[in-house]
Amino acid sequence: MTPRPHHTIHASEHHLGWDNSLPPVRRVRPGESAELEILDASGGQIRPDTTVRELAGLDFSRVNPVTGPLFVEGAEPGDALRITALDIAPSGWGWTANIPGFGLLADDFPEPALHLWSYDAQALAPAMYQPGGRVPLRPFMGTIGVAPAEPGTHSVVPPRRVGGNMDIRDLGTGSVLELPVEVPGALLSVGDTHAAQGDGEVCGTAIESPMRVVLRVDLLKGAGIASPRYETAGPVSRHVDARGYLVTTGIGPDLMEGARAAVRAMIDLLGSRHGLSAVDAYMLLSVCADLRILEIVDQPHWVVGLAFPRVVFE
Amino acid sequence: MTPRPHHTIHASEHHLGWDNSLPPVRRVRPGESAELEILDASGGQIRPDTTVRELAGLDFSRVNPVTGPLFVEGAEPGDALRITALDIAPSGWGWTANIPGFGLLADDFPEPALHLWSYDAQALAPAMYQPGGRVPLRPFMGTIGVAPAEPGTHSVVPPRRVGGNMDIRDLGTGSVLELPVEVPGALLSVGDTHAAQGDGEVCGTAIESPMRVVLRVDLLKGAGIASPRYETAGPVSRHVDARGYLVTTGIGPDLMEGARAAVRAMIDLLGSRHGLSAVDAYMLLSVCADLRILEIVDQPHWVVGLAFPRVVFE
Repeated sequence: MTPRPHHTIHASEHHLGWDNSLPPVRRVRPGESAELEILDASGGQIRPDTTVRELAGLDFSRVNPVTGPLFVEGAEPGDALRITALDIAPSGWGWTANIPGFGLLADDFPEPALHLWSYDAQALAPAMYQPGGRVPLRPFMGTIGVAPAEPGTHSVVPPRRVGGNMDIRDLGTGSVLELPVEVPGALLSVGDTHAAQGDGEVCGTAIESPMRVVLRVDLLKGAGIASPRYETAGPVSRHVDARGYLVTTGIGPDLMEGARAAVRAMIDLLGSRHGLSAVDAYMLLSVCADLRILEIVDQPHWVVGLAFPRVVFE
Repeated sequence: MTPRPHHTIHASEHHLGWDNSLPPVRRVRPGESAELEILDASGGQIRPDTTVRELAGLDFSRVNPVTGPLFVEGAEPGDALRITALDIAPSGWGWTANIPGFGLLADDFPEPALHLWSYDAQALAPAMYQPGGRVPLRPFMGTIGVAPAEPGTHSVVPPRRVGGNMDIRDLGTGSVLELPVEVPGALLSVGDTHAAQGDGEVCGTAIESPMRVVLRVDLLKGAGIASPRYETAGPVSRHVDARGYLVTTGIGPDLMEGARAAVRAMIDLLGSRHGLSAVDAYMLLSVCADLRILEIVDQPHWVVGLAFPRVVFE
């Protein structure tokens, strides 16, 4: 049982864009915990009855809301926040979309696509994906960050040295994240919760899902870290790895092109083995397959692998 | 017990460089198995009593020998070889080196360094790494490939669409690899066996270790694959993941720079936590830490993570 948090911040207390001049919604002392309600990445525009046709009308100015910011007492530039994810409670529904212009293979997939998920928020049994796919779930925070030193409003889409939209699938319950502080109070915000994702998030969306998150915030004075770092509480892949993996590769002088080649090869493989359409395979890979840099030293060719967990179909 | 293989190829039957005009050392029928003796990547130049001073005298023309080539009866361009690793028997000793000019952080580490390993080839208990590190072992083939269509001799260092020096740590016992065939008989060769490696092989060498490998070779007519792909028999990280990971990140517009930043941050972290010198940390990461593409869609910034298994020190 998680103890009752010191603070509760509702989803209405969110902002769009990082900006160190935003007034904090709450002041938090180091060692305190906060419960945050998190909107899905569409800011509530996509609902369980949304159609792919409506996806075209998505208002991008409302995308990627983050709940916060929290002012952490005593935090100063050069410190680090140490954030422990005490509990992440998913909502039971979510969506995955191919949004034109977005995603690793945006040029290959110019048409919108939408998959709506329903899952058991308590048991977190694998979520079904036709025909016959079962996707293991592991909820986490896609976006967690603090305000950058640079003035003005900065898009939430790209992550930065102060964190943000990092889409790191390990940041689930029990993980401990350290973020560099660049402004007084740090100004911590959280958003973009995901029920499942593979390393890379290749189609650009995961199982996008509103959730309730409980965090404890500690302060490391003078930590002087240059970039986010974290510890996981335990293994990060055992929910998917029991039957091993199918792995496709991209080999050549450019990691980005290698990643694209590996994803394309896996889309072909899932199509021929399981009858998935290309875009359905692409979205499935985004929620469960991992991009790995298998080799980065055998000049001038690197190997990127896409590892698809066999448990999804076997 | 692995059944007695149909063929045995000794380490003296090796070649340096890929060349489709090389005479095969053996002809193999699809479905047959072969036992191959594999030299370490130095071709026997580095021995259990080699000193770092002697590393400077390494003859690079003898580096990366591969045992073979095997002519597979009936293999034609457009087919694929399907190679099952039936058994990989390590030798009990190995080496890891920082070789000047080679490795992801070659500019940071201009001086040679050498670590010699001794491990239990039967029990495969974790190998010790001072001060206090224990590196879990999982032997595999670093180099496995077939001859490219292009005439002439091609370096074994870079991997290609026909495989080669892919340094994929998953290619251990039970894995099944498919390679595209480009010349009659395919001309399969194997080398560069490793007792352990992390994804990336960041310092450029793993636990380089001579081994005996038993493979079964099958033929997929007209498979028409563009790049190597494989299946693992089961999980690929459970030998290291029990206590979770420390993860450092590199965030920005270039995956290669992101990988370098993540490795540098972890070298600093291991230095401050465990007192490792920078080059010792760098070599340790090469044999056990994984480079992951955590996010590749939140334009214009990608996140590369280096995941260090906590079990090494905890």
